[in-house]
Amino acid sequence: MKAGATRAEVEAVVARIREMGLAAHEIPGATRVAIGITGNKGALEPGPFQMMQGVADAVPVSKPYKLVSREMNEATTVVSFPNGASVGGEELAVFAGPCAVESRDQVLRTAEVVARSGARFLRGGAFKPRTSPYSFQGLKEEGLKILAEARKATGLAVVTEVKDVETLPMVEEHADLLQIGARNMQNFSLLEAVGKAKKPVLLKRGISDTIQEWLLAAEYVMSQGNYKVILCERGIRTYENATRNTLDLNAVPVLRRMTHLPVVVDPSHATGIVWAVRPMARAAVAAGADGLMVEVHPEPEKALSDGPQSLTLPEYEQLIGEVRAIAAIVGKRV
Amino acid sequence: MKAGATRAEVEAVVARIREMGLAAHEIPGATRVAIGITGNKGALEPGPFQMMQGVADAVPVSKPYKLVSREMNEATTVVSFPNGASVGGEELAVFAGPCAVESRDQVLRTAEVVARSGARFLRGGAFKPRTSPYSFQGLKEEGLKILAEARKATGLAVVTEVKDVETLPMVEEHADLLQIGARNMQNFSLLEAVGKAKKPVLLKRGISDTIQEWLLAAEYVMSQGNYKVILCERGIRTYENATRNTLDLNAVPVLRRMTHLPVVVDPSHATGIVWAVRPMARAAVAAGADGLMVEVHPEPEKALSDGPQSLTLPEYEQLIGEVRAIAAIVGKRV
Amino acid sequence: MKAGATRAEVEAVVARIREMGLAAHEIPGATRVAIGITGNKGALEPGPFQMMQGVADAVPVSKPYKLVSREMNEATTVVSFPNGASVGGEELAVFAGPCAVESRDQVLRTAEVVARSGARFLRGGAFKPRTSPYSFQGLKEEGLKILAEARKATGLAVVTEVKDVETLPMVEEHADLLQIGARNMQNFSLLEAVGKAKKPVLLKRGISDTIQEWLLAAEYVMSQGNYKVILCERGIRTYENATRNTLDLNAVPVLRRMTHLPVVVDPSHATGIVWAVRPMARAAVAAGADGLMVEVHPEPEKALSDGPQSLTLPEYEQLIGEVRAIAAIVGKRV
Amino acid sequence: MKAGATRAEVEAVVARIREMGLAAHEIPGATRVAIGITGNKGALEPGPFQMMQGVADAVPVSKPYKLVSREMNEATTVVSFPNGASVGGEELAVFAGPCAVESRDQVLRTAEVVARSGARFLRGGAFKPRTSPYSFQGLKEEGLKILAEARKATGLAVVTEVKDVETLPMVEEHADLLQIGARNMQNFSLLEAVGKAKKPVLLKRGISDTIQEWLLAAEYVMSQGNYKVILCERGIRTYENATRNTLDLNAVPVLRRMTHLPVVVDPSHATGIVWAVRPMARAAVAAGADGLMVEVHPEPEKALSDGPQSLTLPEYEQLIGEVRAIAAIVGKRV
Repeated sequence: MKAGATRAEVEAVVARIREMGLAAHEIPGATRVAIGITGNKGALEPGPFQMMQGVADAVPVSKPYKLVSREMNEATTVVSFPNGASVGGEELAVFAGPCAVESRDQVLRTAEVVARSGARFLRGGAFKPRTSPYSFQGLKEEGLKILAEARKATGLAVVTEVKDVETLPMVEEHADLLQIGARNMQNFSLLEAVGKAKKPVLLKRGISDTIQEWLLAAEYVMSQGNYKVILCERGIRTYENATRNTLDLNAVPVLRRMTHLPVVVDPSHATGIVWAVRPMARAAVAAGADGLMVEVHPEPEKALSDGPQSLTLPEYEQLIGEVRAIAAIVGKRV
Repeated sequence: MKAGATRAEVEAVVARIREMGLAAHEIPGATRVAIGITGNKGALEPGPFQMMQGVADAVPVSKPYKLVSREMNEATTVVSFPNGASVGGEELAVFAGPCAVESRDQVLRTAEVVARSGARFLRGGAFKPRTSPYSFQGLKEEGLKILAEARKATGLAVVTEVKDVETLPMVEEHADLLQIGARNMQNFSLLEAVGKAKKPVLLKRGISDTIQEWLLAAEYVMSQGNYKVILCERGIRTYENATRNTLDLNAVPVLRRMTHLPVVVDPSHATGIVWAVRPMARAAVAAGADGLMVEVHPEPEKALSDGPQSLTLPEYEQLIGEVRAIAAIVGKRV
Repeated sequence: MKAGATRAEVEAVVARIREMGLAAHEIPGATRVAIGITGNKGALEPGPFQMMQGVADAVPVSKPYKLVSREMNEATTVVSFPNGASVGGEELAVFAGPCAVESRDQVLRTAEVVARSGARFLRGGAFKPRTSPYSFQGLKEEGLKILAEARKATGLAVVTEVKDVETLPMVEEHADLLQIGARNMQNFSLLEAVGKAKKPVLLKRGISDTIQEWLLAAEYVMSQGNYKVILCERGIRTYENATRNTLDLNAVPVLRRMTHLPVVVDPSHATGIVWAVRPMARAAVAAGADGLMVEVHPEPEKALSDGPQSLTLPEYEQLIGEVRAIAAIVGKRV
Repeated sequence: MKAGATRAEVEAVVARIREMGLAAHEIPGATRVAIGITGNKGALEPGPFQMMQGVADAVPVSKPYKLVSREMNEATTVVSFPNGASVGGEELAVFAGPCAVESRDQVLRTAEVVARSGARFLRGGAFKPRTSPYSFQGLKEEGLKILAEARKATGLAVVTEVKDVETLPMVEEHADLLQIGARNMQNFSLLEAVGKAKKPVLLKRGISDTIQEWLLAAEYVMSQGNYKVILCERGIRTYENATRNTLDLNAVPVLRRMTHLPVVVDPSHATGIVWAVRPMARAAVAAGADGLMVEVHPEPEKALSDGPQSLTLPEYEQLIGEVRAIAAIVGKRV
């Protein structure tokens, strides 16, 4: 739609699409609204739409992913949160906190430092999918309540993982941003469920998924009507074992070309080694990422999961200082 | 337990384990029962168990996976079905049928040929997890009913994919064997749900999962009390693109060492090319697999999914002839 | 050329090609000769060739690799050796022996068993490229002489690795088949040098090379005039670490389609574990390989390199028994 | 050795090592000399060395690579060039130029812009190892002469690839820095040859080599007495095909820990896409790399190899501006 298109003009287009038995997706942008169409079997004739009032242009999307594609929206989508934070705009979003919520004290202490450093998001897992059934699986509802308390105390927005459809309502009640973990990136039933949720979704890349599969997973969410999707690169599985995974920073510029969705990078999971987190966080920002997700823990050596990759609180503050300087060079601010 | 242990002796051991607040897993074997213990935090003292009546030995399992490990059960587990078929014993199990259930006619025609060839299992997807939300997602309940009708007509046991916890009861009603697809191999909530189901489980290897992760996924199922698990190798993701995936037949002898669970190989998904299916099916049997899963379709060129990898019915019959001869050399029969 | 084309007709075609400033490659086949043309920049007009005497057809090769492609030669190339053995025909070629030549006694004892088992080729490394400069690098010329002595004693043909251009003349003096190791698969100067040698070449697949890159490496050899090239699959590098490498048996049927060159499989290097060698050797033959390369050592526990993957002499004899039976099913004999 | 150790003290230690029949490697550092010992079979007793004059400490190196390891030298090695440039120190080294030398005009035009931008190294391939024998293989000696002429005109140091032992003397005559390409990273004969050369060596990581294998390849060079080795990360082969290779920036902090050798990053080959080069160059510097290698071409669309990844001259100048700002944050300058 044109930049100045009226509400009535938008609704007329939506109505026309629905009359044709198709789904209309009204995707808000910085200056103008884009309307995606899905449900068509073959190509649609652009002519009739181009002639409608308020329509700037009607273009077929050439990629297998439609609503997520850059062709749908020239401007990067900005996802906003109740605490005033946003992801995808000028502000570099920082998501910091422990891998797993372990205790009230641990979370509140960490949240305080995170808030003071200028970050706007607290991360922490209440439901922890673990490779072994015998590993610590998270504090579950109790963990969610601790996170909500930390939000109240600090004003940070809370991001936490949704493990399955069954516990989604409980997570949605307490979280500001619903994280889909790497192992669930192609759990299509869960993607459809969060596609119907009201809260934004942070979609981590599967450990061995291509960028195209990742975008199609985001498409599952958007096709259900939830357009607030953030992508998170967290390392891929390769033959190299010197680090836990290989951080694929190439994905940052590639995604910029392919999609209008914002992109966040998690160097903690990608490297699995605390001394590699700072350099890779700097690199992610220099590559143009919209945000960083890092693990911090007041006492990493006592962490129940992923301790070796967690920054101490002073290390975290040092990281933020470096990242702030690099962000300025690429047009972002912390 | 000793080969001749009585029911009362078994139950006494189980009761003792439960008194300690731990879970007891009674895993049936060809000649003797093994009792697995889970839920302990540290190592258990073997002495008290060794002194109980009917106990042959008490050994700690040295691997991160416990109930699935070969240390738990020297003999390969044999999973039996109501139609008399079994997987893991002398009989080479053949699972054949279309990738997706598309129509009653397609399934009944295929099932008839499959049954005549000596196979005992009909495969076919009613719920199809697809990379794109806009691809054909299966006939769902209607597909399950078609499969059930084909079972009635032919006596074949039916294996079909369970996509999520929500539709598990519906699938369990119609299927003899619950397939967990590659993308759900680390969907732990689904693994726990089929772990509580009554029907056996066929667990496909995730496209990029290590053998150890695969065994831990099977452990999730077994830890919930379902001990009838069959593993299915279906190709892994590598840098090589001449075939869809790289069939990892090394996994067959490796799994033989590591686990007592039976192993099936799916050369159709692993290669994605019809002319590679026959040689790789032969290779799988020669490597010592307990079964084969192959796609057959009366008219592959009309298939809604994965047509290029489906054998025609005559090609399938030729394959069975070759496989029968090789099976005899490695001590199996079709 | 037609099956009955005369020598004069072949030479006339070759002369015509050379007049055009191009290279002519006369590639012998079972029933007819094929003449490859390289050196052209754009497409050539087939008409003038088709009209020449004795020409069956003139077809442009559609692949980036030309002389190695199946389009050049319908029949699989048979590479013959002075001791009467061959690779690519009905006989399943078995190359057996130690990883490295360590002593006269070791090689002669092994060669005797190998010869008795029906194998026709003795393998053994005299020049050993090793990841570390501080590892045993082989007995070099002394090793070559030991191999030559074993040939004299047993009638086995000798295959051994050529490490560089400098030592090629020395290796060519003693070996019947020049092995290019995985790490040298894209050492183009070495490929060109063996392309000018008189002895056949066994080209191992690079640990991370695609099938297309492998065929282009073979093309380097053939483009220099050596048409006796044998390909050897020896496992590829993937994320899976349960075995040393992942044996890519898919490559066997794929190569059958793409090239007329014979294909051999090395399960010893691909698995790196002795108990996985027998099942994978059986699988390779069932997949249709033209030969097997296996490591045997009279005392594997004392081997200076790769001991854990070497079969003992009795294990080797058991393997040959199994392989003989499977070979018969796929139309080969040992 | 201690910081103030005299020449005589150093020589006494070297002599003692040689008396023991071992090799002594005198590796110069910023403030002190380290002496590496190789050739020993078992562990050496440190006591006798520790008591010698001028010796600070004698420590066994715990890694399979010795001379390259960080344990050998706390300070990063600085490799200096006749034109005053250096790699490994405060200056961020920029190596820029075309993939292949194609003409005098192309190289001289590019060199001029490169020199003006503040770079100190001109890159360009005269010998081009190519996957296909039918691709452009470089201008060879003529190319080397063009590079030498450009050096004379601009004062840039020249880095160019050495393809094989045969042409090494010719390359060494014209180049300031000998590049070993990715495909030759485990061409041990070539590594040994450049280990005996007088010029420094730039060792590119093999496309599928682990960091440990890479360090062992550098060890081959150093073990022959050439201690001026620079490592160059250029992307690894993974399953992801959205970019040509996956740039492994994790390697930068990992190498910092493991080795004292300087590390350069080549985002042009790693991504293969011109619009990804700038962000990834920025990221490499932010991760802490000692240098950047980038392809620039006055007319990329006319390049004979790798055109799509070459920056135009204006794009290159923009890149240098961004990189200069980031370098300052991590303590480097262009």
